[in-house]
Amino acid sequence: MHSLQFTAESSSDGMVERDFTVGGVPGVLWSPAPGADRAPLVLMGHGGGNHKKHPAMAGRARLLVTGCGFHVAVIDAPAHGDRPRTAHDEQEIAELYRARAAGEPEGPIVVRYNAHLAELAVPEWQATLDALQELPEIGADGRVGYFGINMGTAIGIPLVAIEPRITAAVFGQHWPDVLAEKARRITVPIEFDMQWDDEHIPREAALALFDAFASKEKTLHANAGRHKELPRFEADSAVRFFARHLGRAVTPPA
Amino acid sequence: MHSLQFTAESSSDGMVERDFTVGGVPGVLWSPAPGADRAPLVLMGHGGGNHKKHPAMAGRARLLVTGCGFHVAVIDAPAHGDRPRTAHDEQEIAELYRARAAGEPEGPIVVRYNAHLAELAVPEWQATLDALQELPEIGADGRVGYFGINMGTAIGIPLVAIEPRITAAVFGQHWPDVLAEKARRITVPIEFDMQWDDEHIPREAALALFDAFASKEKTLHANAGRHKELPRFEADSAVRFFARHLGRAVTPPA
Repeated sequence: MHSLQFTAESSSDGMVERDFTVGGVPGVLWSPAPGADRAPLVLMGHGGGNHKKHPAMAGRARLLVTGCGFHVAVIDAPAHGDRPRTAHDEQEIAELYRARAAGEPEGPIVVRYNAHLAELAVPEWQATLDALQELPEIGADGRVGYFGINMGTAIGIPLVAIEPRITAAVFGQHWPDVLAEKARRITVPIEFDMQWDDEHIPREAALALFDAFASKEKTLHANAGRHKELPRFEADSAVRFFARHLGRAVTPPA
Repeated sequence: MHSLQFTAESSSDGMVERDFTVGGVPGVLWSPAPGADRAPLVLMGHGGGNHKKHPAMAGRARLLVTGCGFHVAVIDAPAHGDRPRTAHDEQEIAELYRARAAGEPEGPIVVRYNAHLAELAVPEWQATLDALQELPEIGADGRVGYFGINMGTAIGIPLVAIEPRITAAVFGQHWPDVLAEKARRITVPIEFDMQWDDEHIPREAALALFDAFASKEKTLHANAGRHKELPRFEADSAVRFFARHLGRAVTPPA
């Protein structure tokens, strides 16, 4: 088992930020001020082309850490952030840009490339979770959630499908092609975001992926707007979802 | 114009409850403690077979009054609560029970009967709003929302379609047959609830009604479960929706 190495630490406004690596994979752990009780952990998957400290990640982490007292961990996906790209990565990314420039559908390329990245990322997440649970402020018996949209869903669905430690998840904005079959194995509570006027993901495709989850408790949030127009209030909703399922009250900002 | 007559008043836990009538229609107004500043108003439509003080109404009112400082008004729909039934009402209700007992679809009967009730109820709501806006604690220029599911949607969609004073609405759980055409005239922000496994309203029918709203800002909340299993947390979500659009912060319960 790989252990966790902290490589940097800073803090601001009641949130501690610690960079770490596990088996060479770089990550960040955001936590409440030191000395707090053991607390639940939310794993967050970043979107395609982004990285572990993208403002969307840091912003959601702040809501979860200062609002709920949770820990939040993000790792760079393969070929993202501080991680190297292979020739295969470069080829797929070039193909995506080519399709985009030509006005061709992105779906087939994104689906197959994200499925490839998920195969690499799922064992990385499991090793990261093993190592994080060694920390006394997290612990092996604490509650764990997963929160990832877009590529974060392409990696998160296969992860949650095989990882019994994760007991609640927020997903959204992906195609069902590869994922629906894995979603059928997921039974934990789910919140799922889609954009009603998504120019990349057909409405029926998004609805089919939501429909596939075997979860008795699942909620679809569909908002008017295009792919990149997911409203900010859906992050607040995700925080309340985790507060309900991982067991802390939400403290509104002062 | 009919004026508003208060007929009873009580209060508990920081919420004042006043019964009233406007032009013979009985209603209830729930308000923050006296002396509060002028505040927004949420009109709530009750469900079929229920009445203005059904526990679901009183519970939602408490969230809006004590959480947001809003006023909340509900009136009995025609043939509901303290209001008389006509021979036509009795006939339609008997037909609904007959279809239910025979295992036939309720939709066609509910759709046509609710459309009939809405024709009567819309002018009653407009007269009630006129009268409520005469009260100094509400005023003619304050913000107004509408919140109604099931029959509350069958009455609310035609109301909001013609009533420019209502600037945000929560609807849900109805068929599109009569309502979609009116929903196309609605442009204010909407939150819309549906049950993913509704045994009465087909999934495609609910999605079609959500799709019909012309609102630039609209959100669908679809939850796993049958018709009567709408989760309680959707009432909390509706409260936050009104807090966003009518302009007050939500105060969590102590």
